[in-house]
Formats: sequence, structure tokens, C-alpha cells
Amino acid sequence: MNLTVRRIGRLLTMTREPLVDAAVVVRQGRVVWVGAERDLPAGAAGEEYDAGGACVVPGFVDAHTHLVFAGVRREEFVARLGGESYDGGGIAVTVDATRAASHEELVDLAAARAASALSHGTTTMEVKTGYGPTPEHELRLLDVIASLSRRTPLRLEPTYLGAHVMPPGRERGDYVREVVATMPRAVEHGARWADVFCDQGAFTVEEARRILTAAREAGLGLRLHAEEIAHTGAARLAAQLGCASADHLEHVTPEEAAALAAAGTVAVLLPTVTLSLRSDAWGHAALLREAGVELALGTDCNPGTSWCESMPYAIQLGCLAMGLSVEEAFRAATLGAARSLRRDDVGRIAVGAWGDLAILDAEHEADVVAHLGGRAVLRTVVGGFLH
Amino acid sequence: MNLTVRRIGRLLTMTREPLVDAAVVVRQGRVVWVGAERDLPAGAAGEEYDAGGACVVPGFVDAHTHLVFAGVRREEFVARLGGESYDGGGIAVTVDATRAASHEELVDLAAARAASALSHGTTTMEVKTGYGPTPEHELRLLDVIASLSRRTPLRLEPTYLGAHVMPPGRERGDYVREVVATMPRAVEHGARWADVFCDQGAFTVEEARRILTAAREAGLGLRLHAEEIAHTGAARLAAQLGCASADHLEHVTPEEAAALAAAGTVAVLLPTVTLSLRSDAWGHAALLREAGVELALGTDCNPGTSWCESMPYAIQLGCLAMGLSVEEAFRAATLGAARSLRRDDVGRIAVGAWGDLAILDAEHEADVVAHLGGRAVLRTVVGGFLH
Repeated sequence: MNLTVRRIGRLLTMTREPLVDAAVVVRQGRVVWVGAERDLPAGAAGEEYDAGGACVVPGFVDAHTHLVFAGVRREEFVARLGGESYDGGGIAVTVDATRAASHEELVDLAAARAASALSHGTTTMEVKTGYGPTPEHELRLLDVIASLSRRTPLRLEPTYLGAHVMPPGRERGDYVREVVATMPRAVEHGARWADVFCDQGAFTVEEARRILTAAREAGLGLRLHAEEIAHTGAARLAAQLGCASADHLEHVTPEEAAALAAAGTVAVLLPTVTLSLRSDAWGHAALLREAGVELALGTDCNPGTSWCESMPYAIQLGCLAMGLSVEEAFRAATLGAARSLRRDDVGRIAVGAWGDLAILDAEHEADVVAHLGGRAVLRTVVGGFLH
Repeated sequence: MNLTVRRIGRLLTMTREPLVDAAVVVRQGRVVWVGAERDLPAGAAGEEYDAGGACVVPGFVDAHTHLVFAGVRREEFVARLGGESYDGGGIAVTVDATRAASHEELVDLAAARAASALSHGTTTMEVKTGYGPTPEHELRLLDVIASLSRRTPLRLEPTYLGAHVMPPGRERGDYVREVVATMPRAVEHGARWADVFCDQGAFTVEEARRILTAAREAGLGLRLHAEEIAHTGAARLAAQLGCASADHLEHVTPEEAAALAAAGTVAVLLPTVTLSLRSDAWGHAALLREAGVELALGTDCNPGTSWCESMPYAIQLGCLAMGLSVEEAFRAATLGAARSLRRDDVGRIAVGAWGDLAILDAEHEADVVAHLGGRAVLRTVVGGFLH
């Protein structure tokens, strides 16, 4: 699609200093020109959009979601806020509802969430399976993601998270072997990534190592839920395996952060989880930054610990609760998240990259951080199509 | 205006247990009937609105705003997040911009914020002066609030906050005497309340006592900014004077909380300020609840420490960051805030009260707390008019 966006008051490209009074030209979905509007070449492209002085940033890249699920966890949420220990059934509620839902129902539910994310400026999204949680059900969820990709303009990055929840009654070694054996089929069902929930009460570091090693052999990229609930050594494993991302990291140590930086593993920060869980784990962002780790942001969209499709909200909490600067947070939500997906065609506005833009409802990106509870995004552009 | 709202999936009236499958009838702006839809009397009222199973709550009452101001404080905000000590000029930036703005400009700016608040379900709002900050300029800001009340459907409660910022170069005693002397004129200019920013670096407890005593003599109701920045004894003063509200209270002690409870002073909690300032002052809500103080919520909408017009966001942070239950937070945002304004005609859905409703974009009020960054309110009704 061809589109010229004019009258951009302030443009963050993520590849150079912010531009003022700028324009962007997209042709056949790709950016072909970026610069000051006064230099705009004549006869640039078809449709024109007048940004009216708004600030424009790259379309957001959500580096971590569990978008495919059914059911609600309202009782658990209300009980948690009421100070009760009752967990309302927890993740099992989601697993049961997801198993009971048809393919079409799951696609419909995920598509509504994707539409919400799009309205909040997201243009690329990582999507995990994980509520199967047997390999057969997990492969079915990969099929849901494949169907979803035909229903939403978002660029999806499907992740096979077979090792999310241990199915009740299964022997651990058996189940891990089954997940390992399923990797080639996960690739056939469209997975590009593998992930493991490696934490206290979930999968061990050694189990995660076996699973991710098999995933790499099958040709999948590697991600890892690490150091969220307790310190387990998962971050060190992520560095050893050269994972593209290590996610959460609330309990990471400075030494592990240095190892992640050296390995080029991107840290995916998920501030909405900390808020949802009423935790006070806000300090790890500063520690990771200090170690020179590339930071990414994600919503962790899921029914239990972060019901959120809004990257601007993740940015806002990343700043106000986690202590990122405005510049760091916007980089993490675009370029950093793209790097966690090993992509250089999204997360920046540059010639050759996809024409994916978030047109902010503000003159300056800082205003969507400062303005609490307000609307952040006016329009979202994916591959030159205005949404 | 006459309106029947049907097909309410869940109705919180604040006067009895939640109703299911309910309806509300408003005639000439007032609620004339509330109950289960199957009992709806025939020929109830003119216009009908089908809530489609949504949850409906009383229109929100925002108990604390500084809605009338000009200028932006972006530099200060960016610097604060970047860890710099530079304050960008702070409140003086707002004072200068507000003084430089015309009456019409100030009304326009405030009207846009009021429209945003309305879209977030607010139907009654307390509005303070305070960026004058000389009595003459403060009276001008009361005139702005009077003009605003003709531009917005919101029910406004104007507060004279002559003692907000000490004007540079003035002798304290002189200035306090001037504020005291201005009280009768504040009433003439439409004020219903007086407030003092009683805190470290602002006005002392003794100054606040003099000002509020004069305000009471002039017929104004009393509110007090208390114990926000430091512990000063302001909460005890609020209890002694029988203030309708004591606001902020981050540093309140259990003894002072007990005094507020005994005096019937409502505690106005402002969680968006704590987030905006990157503070960790979240514990006072539990302490106040423990003491049996009636709780209210407000946005504290202002350009420096809480740029926010959204009561659902205050509710969300009240729960997730401050530890209120869902039930407590909705009560604080409706009935509690109405009590802080000594009103029983708003903040509840009952025969005789104003027909002010927030129709949530959810089946259950807990979902607008759990769903982060999402839209909370579908439609707002003020006096039977749909907005």
C-alpha cells in the first residue's frame, strides 16, 4: 500500500535524532522516504494522511503475549484485591476454558484482543501458545495463531510454549520428552520461536535446557521466561544458550545481567505484571540498563496476571513505576522489542523497513507517558494501511 | 430529561446489594425508579437506552481537581524521569501561563479536560482555583469555573484555593490576611468550598487555621490538603475544624486517622499523584480504612503531579497500587466522594438522586480494574442525558 504521512510535528525514527515537521512515504508497504516535509519529493505516493502536527513513532512491537486463551479470571482477581488467599482456580480455569473452546472461538477471542492492540498502536506482536498444555493442544493453539494471522493486520511472531504449565497427573520426565519430541511438528504448525516457563513451581533450568536445545535443533529461535517468581538461574541459561530474549527478570542479579549483555540477549520487561500482581518488583530495569542489556517492553497479555493489550500503558508504567526514561521506554517498545525478535524490518522508521507507524494523540511522546488514563494513539499504520 | 436504561446486566446503586438484569428510570433529570427489569412499570419514560448487559454504576464524583490552568510541564516531567534534579520551573511555569491566558482561553482548556472526564464517566467534579495565586487572580479563576459550568454538563463544585502557592516577594502574614479578607468575595464569585495547601514548603497549620476559620465564617465548606509532602499536623487540624475532606494524607498517623473518623471528615485519596511523582506512598489507604475513615477518590487533575481526568484510572490504581478492594474503590469514587462534598443527590442510584450514570464497557466492575490500559466507560449519563 502507498501512503504519504505529512505534517508530522515530531518523528521518532529510532535510527537518528527526532525530526520536526517531517513526512514519511510508504510504497508497497515499505518506507521509501523519511525526512523534513519541505524536502518531500514531488509525486511521492497515493493516499495522503495529514498528521496535524502529531508525534509519530514506529508501530509498537509487543515482545511478549499469551494472546490465545478463553475464559475470565474475575473471581481470582477480586479475591486477590480483597486480600483473600483463594486463587479462584488460577491458571487451571484458563486451561479448562481454552481446551473447551473451538478453534473458531479462540480465533475470535484473540482477534478482538489483536484489534484492541492495533488501536493502541501495536503493529508487530509475539504470541505464545501455553494454555493447552499438552503438545497436541499446543499444536492446535499454533493453528489458532496461524488463523489469527489471516484475521489481523498485525505481524505475528508465533511461539511454541509447550512447557508453560505441567499437566496434572503427568510424570515430569515423560512430559518434557514429549515437548522435546514435538518441536519439529511445532515448526510445521508455524512456530518461529520456542519458550519455556522456567521458574519455581514451573520447569527447572535443566528441563528448560533440554527443551530449548531441541527447539534450536528444530530451527526455532529461543526465548525464556526467567527469574520472575524466584531466582533459579534461568537468566544464566538464557545467556548460555544465546536466547534472543529473557523475559520478566524481576530477580536477576548484576552478574547475570552482565552475562545477558555479553550474549546479546534482550531483556523483555513486563511492568503491567508487577502492577497486576501487586508486587514491588520494579528495580530490575535499572540493574539491566546498568549492565548494558538491550531492553524491550511487552504487555504479557494474559487473563491472570496482565490483562492488557496496550503498549502505551506498558511504556507509561515502564517509566513511572520502573524508572525508564521516556526515551528508553519508547526505544524498548519499538527497536528493543524488534531486536528481541531478531527483526530489523520493524521497530524503526527507515528506508526499507515496513511502513508501520503509531500516530500519537499528542505533540510529543512524553505527553502520552505523562497523561494518565488518556488515549495515546490516534491512528495506527501497518504496511502503509491506515487503521 | 427522561430516560429509561434497560438491559443493565449488573447495577451498583451504592445503597443496596448489586442488582442483576436491572433498569433505571430517570424523569426530569432525577431517578424515579430502580429495580429488576421484569418489574419495570409500563410507560416509564421517553428515550430508551439498551445497555446490552453492561455493568452500570453511579456517575463518578471526582473529589479533587485543579482543572483550571494553562501551559504544559513537559520539560519537568522528562527531566524527572531521566533522573535529573532540574525541575523545569515547576509550578511557576503553570502560574505564569495561567496568568497570561485570557478568560476564554482558560475556559476552553478546562472545557476540553471536562469533556475528557465526562468520557471517562465523571458526572460531578470538585474544581479548585490556585494558580493565580493572588486573590484577584484567584477570583478570576472562580469566574472561569462559573463560565465552565455553562459549557460542560458536569456538576461542578468550585473551591477557592487562594492559599496554594505563596506569591514570590510577598510577606507571609500580609498574604494570609489578604486571603482571609477575600473570603466574602470568593462566595460572591461562586465558591462553595475553601481549601489550603497546608504542607512543608506551603502554608503552615496555623495559617491554614486562620484561613479556614474565615472561610467558615463566610459560609464556605472546608477542605484541606494535608500530610502530602511531610507530616505537619494538618490532618489533626482538618478533624478539629470538622473539614468535609482531608486530601492526600500520605503521611497520616493512626491517631490522626482516628480523629478524622470521629470528625466525619472524608479522606480523599489521590493515587495518580503517587504514581506520577514516582513515590512509594501507598500505605495510607489501608491505615485510613483500618481507622474507619470514609474514603473518597479523586484524580487531582493538574499539570505537574497528576495529568489525569480519568476516575476509572484512579479506581484502578486505588486497587492495584493502594490496595483497595474493588468494592471499596467504586464506593470511594461515587458515594465516598459525594460525601466529601456533603451531597446525597449524587454518587448513588436511588429514587430522588440525580440521574447520573456511568455505563461501563464491561459486564462487571472488576473487569475495568483488571483490564489495564483499556476503555472503561461506554456512555455517561448526566441528569438523564446520554453523552
